[in-house]
Amino acid sequence: MSFYAAPVARLIEEFEKLPGVGHKTAQRLAFHVLNLTDQKAEKLANAIMEAKLKTRYCSICSNLTDTDPCSICTGASREPSVICIVEDPRDVVAMERTREFKGVYHVLHGAISPMEGIGPEDIKIKELLSRVKDGSIKEVILATNPNIEGEATAMYISRLLKPLGIKTTRIAHGIPVGGDLEYADEVTLAKALEGRREI
Amino acid sequence: MSFYAAPVARLIEEFEKLPGVGHKTAQRLAFHVLNLTDQKAEKLANAIMEAKLKTRYCSICSNLTDTDPCSICTGASREPSVICIVEDPRDVVAMERTREFKGVYHVLHGAISPMEGIGPEDIKIKELLSRVKDGSIKEVILATNPNIEGEATAMYISRLLKPLGIKTTRIAHGIPVGGDLEYADEVTLAKALEGRREI
Repeated sequence: MSFYAAPVARLIEEFEKLPGVGHKTAQRLAFHVLNLTDQKAEKLANAIMEAKLKTRYCSICSNLTDTDPCSICTGASREPSVICIVEDPRDVVAMERTREFKGVYHVLHGAISPMEGIGPEDIKIKELLSRVKDGSIKEVILATNPNIEGEATAMYISRLLKPLGIKTTRIAHGIPVGGDLEYADEVTLAKALEGRREI
Repeated sequence: MSFYAAPVARLIEEFEKLPGVGHKTAQRLAFHVLNLTDQKAEKLANAIMEAKLKTRYCSICSNLTDTDPCSICTGASREPSVICIVEDPRDVVAMERTREFKGVYHVLHGAISPMEGIGPEDIKIKELLSRVKDGSIKEVILATNPNIEGEATAMYISRLLKPLGIKTTRIAHGIPVGGDLEYADEVTLAKALEGRREI
């Protein structure tokens, strides 16, 4: 039983469904909303609905977008023959932040994970294959996460692409910039050593 | 510059305005919303607007309510001659959870704090005075927080009510139940000693 007025109780309940939000935080958020002006609360509610209704997946790269194809796929300064494969739209943002990559993306929306019952058909691999089959792709960069699922996914995709004669690369593993050798785990350090380059 | 599609960027921005929500958390919340069904996202957006539009302050006790007067002020089993004064609607919920208090409430919506420029006229003290002046009130319980502002507010209100011949009490300070003497601060311990009762 809740001691709050019904609309307040409902709002707390809705906030509690958000990830990482417990009952106390949901209460604090609800009271914050109640103290907003009507206008500001409406802005928040509208942002939720707009984001939900106006964003979809790009029909080419499956990234989140409000225009189809997305602004990266249609970008005049982008090189469409280099595709960077990532697991998640957030990874696109992380890559874009480097301002180094001028190609386009392909968002898998997940990684192969037999433990969680996610197979190759559950992520956007067949969309990738139909994208590369016309032969215009020069390079596919596998930028899935450096964990078991990401490595398995990268391996799986590279085995599909190699017979097609497409250059397939994997982003480098190594010590993070600003990191400390002393605190690097042995696997990362081994990968850094293995990936050493002449200077 | 944001690398997200405009509606996603706007949603992240709105979430970032919530208390205790930084950029990373706002991103996580936004992607959670994007992965909800349309229906569930609508429920969240509606809960925000409904809570905002349907709740107001009770015209008697100033508690948050969707009916006026609120369900406590109109409750048949409540004793309207005993008023418990609290700072915040959340304190009403905390008191109700004890299931011990059968009187009614008065929510001040703050406490006197010269440091923050909050004076007696900024909180609902004059509403309290107009409530008690008809002489039907037997007791006023001051349940403001046990900090400087709460104590000052309790003191201020008791000085206003005493000349009117109204019994004015303050909730007890002492060791919390389940607490440990060893870890109690000296002020709490002194208050606990001072408030000792025969058993």
